[in-house]
Amino acid sequence: MAKIEKVSPLAPAKFPNIPEIDGVEFSTAAAGIKYQDRTDVMLAILDPGTEIAGVFTSSSTRSYAVIDCEKKIRLKDNSMGAAIIVNSGNANAFTGSRGEVSVDAITAAVSDRLQIPQSRVFSSSTGVIGEEMPHNKLIGALDQMIIDKDGKNIIGAAKAIMTTDTYPKGSVAKVQSDEGEILIAGIAKGSGMIAPDMATMLVYIFTDALIKKNVLQSYLSEINERTFNSISVDGDTSTSDTVLMAATGKSGIRVEKNHKGFLDALTCLMTDLAHQVVKDGEGASKFVEINILNAKTSSDAKTLAKSIANSPLVKTAIAGEDPNWGRIVMAIGKSGAEAERDKLKIYFGDILVAENGWVSSSYSEGIGASYMKNSEIKISVDIGLGKANTTFWTCDFTNDYVSINADYRS
Amino acid sequence: MAKIEKVSPLAPAKFPNIPEIDGVEFSTAAAGIKYQDRTDVMLAILDPGTEIAGVFTSSSTRSYAVIDCEKKIRLKDNSMGAAIIVNSGNANAFTGSRGEVSVDAITAAVSDRLQIPQSRVFSSSTGVIGEEMPHNKLIGALDQMIIDKDGKNIIGAAKAIMTTDTYPKGSVAKVQSDEGEILIAGIAKGSGMIAPDMATMLVYIFTDALIKKNVLQSYLSEINERTFNSISVDGDTSTSDTVLMAATGKSGIRVEKNHKGFLDALTCLMTDLAHQVVKDGEGASKFVEINILNAKTSSDAKTLAKSIANSPLVKTAIAGEDPNWGRIVMAIGKSGAEAERDKLKIYFGDILVAENGWVSSSYSEGIGASYMKNSEIKISVDIGLGKANTTFWTCDFTNDYVSINADYRS
Repeated sequence: MAKIEKVSPLAPAKFPNIPEIDGVEFSTAAAGIKYQDRTDVMLAILDPGTEIAGVFTSSSTRSYAVIDCEKKIRLKDNSMGAAIIVNSGNANAFTGSRGEVSVDAITAAVSDRLQIPQSRVFSSSTGVIGEEMPHNKLIGALDQMIIDKDGKNIIGAAKAIMTTDTYPKGSVAKVQSDEGEILIAGIAKGSGMIAPDMATMLVYIFTDALIKKNVLQSYLSEINERTFNSISVDGDTSTSDTVLMAATGKSGIRVEKNHKGFLDALTCLMTDLAHQVVKDGEGASKFVEINILNAKTSSDAKTLAKSIANSPLVKTAIAGEDPNWGRIVMAIGKSGAEAERDKLKIYFGDILVAENGWVSSSYSEGIGASYMKNSEIKISVDIGLGKANTTFWTCDFTNDYVSINADYRS
Repeated sequence: MAKIEKVSPLAPAKFPNIPEIDGVEFSTAAAGIKYQDRTDVMLAILDPGTEIAGVFTSSSTRSYAVIDCEKKIRLKDNSMGAAIIVNSGNANAFTGSRGEVSVDAITAAVSDRLQIPQSRVFSSSTGVIGEEMPHNKLIGALDQMIIDKDGKNIIGAAKAIMTTDTYPKGSVAKVQSDEGEILIAGIAKGSGMIAPDMATMLVYIFTDALIKKNVLQSYLSEINERTFNSISVDGDTSTSDTVLMAATGKSGIRVEKNHKGFLDALTCLMTDLAHQVVKDGEGASKFVEINILNAKTSSDAKTLAKSIANSPLVKTAIAGEDPNWGRIVMAIGKSGAEAERDKLKIYFGDILVAENGWVSSSYSEGIGASYMKNSEIKISVDIGLGKANTTFWTCDFTNDYVSINADYRS
């Protein structure tokens, strides 16, 4: 493996201080699924009454664990406890009928040990595609994991699900109201939307809010579109991407639709985790925000943002600190979304780079080159055809990305 | 500029021996538009009676030269001579209203010097985006170019239009019939579909066939879809891509619709030129053919082929000679085209790699790793849902690509 062992230069200073969420306990184990000398399984144990919502990869070759979660997420009964079981090191994807056997064996074993219905056990796997899952190693670790469960160990959970990640990802948000405080905490892994075979994006969010399942699902789906569905590292999409959110209700504070405090806090937390995933993008040296303003439709806005964010030419230019706005024009043009050359305004940060179909008279290459030395780069494009805006986040494309991925498995 | 000066390892042994095409003469000049000490303008002078067809980039930010060609290609009169004038070093794209001024000045000057209508002068420009075109340098070279015209100098024309290309690209095909022989010759430039700012793909094809304009256009459009529209280097699309074809009629041999000999010869020539463009892909070390078999629709077949061809993860794995078929599964899954995991069959060359939703029992990593050492790699995927097939060509994605593009302009 072409290891680039160093922690991403864009990593946050430290893992946040996350208080216990009432109704959630964590446990981890080093089951030896693939990695040696590190934890590779995490279990989240959820109290009865917990509502669970989820969003999943739309890949047509998605793993059986995802298909199984999709089925279970539709069921309504929350009277029993629930659990989330996740391993790293093996994706159990494209493993034929064996994939289903492994998911069934793992979720049945957790169900049995915790005395909860199998339909309330959600599993994810992240790692190499196409290798048989050694599920008995995971199952053999369960008894000790249940003994070790601890409401404080969310950082351990964040570490156990890492693959090529260079740092564990966590975030916490609090919602203050007259009735008291709601806590929301989340962990994520991913070093690319999918970057190498093993860089599935997995996200688990926990809250003590008292919230109905369908309301929870609508918050999650809506915010997901603006956060995890608005990032990319390389434009490749995992077979296993999963975002699960569990609400234990233990705070006793009810959250209905349109609860601004909850919406804002969850948006903030999901944005933070999404940024942490991008900042751990393989080989990333720059964090890039792309704003599309005044596109004709929301769909056009996202198409334009993605076309810029996923262009190898734009991404390599940023890696080289080259203020190459011509490549942004190219990416807009190829996107298929509506755009008119002479209505475009392109900005680096607050610097107007191009307008009226040409470079701006106030712009100079020196100003642009100086801006590009920042480690966080903001590119804004005013399309001038409508009122749809969107923001998208990505990273640059460096030699390290190629080195990491050119012989990842060897 | 991060120059990678060496000629592509995938380059053909030599430029082909191309006979004169009756009715076409070439000339080149070193006008100093950007490059020093090399030719950067080519002029093709076409006899009266020449029919011209073209296909162009669909970019919404396409250059004015492209828009001008699109207009002129619709006109019907072929009674006067015609000309194609091309410069390298400056794309004259995203240059506001100045772009139009330059195209008008250049085509008017050629019209004047050759005494042909301006509507019969087609221009292209390839080079940096967003810099004003110094069109007077080009115009100043025209008189000597007309003196120097020479039916044999197609190789000079191929060289003058190069930008980051590492070799000139040419091809020739002959159609034998009872009435005699038709010649078809073509030149191309491009080092990526668009690779850097300057790697517009430009293609000029000449034949002495006697063929009506609408018939010529339908041959060109149809074959273009299977050749130049079936290649990529990085998935980025130029603001200036142009394929022009001129038929002088001087052989006196009439070509109607469904002329198998002509169709085959032109397909062969356009495929050859398309492959030469891919083989000069920036940083390329492997030439990759992707075959999609039995997709549900033709559109699905192309979507699947492109998804594999443009996946950074697939391309970096090939660069690393890693038989990483899991990434092919990923690229199929993310494409949005219909696919069913358990119906897929994936092949490297003739080696069956995966079927029934898992790795094939006859496949071993050693067999795959050995195959990946070839400089030409064939990946085939049988989708098993219909009857639509397609073939697509691309190259691998190496550190050199990043190096070339990370500071191309500096």
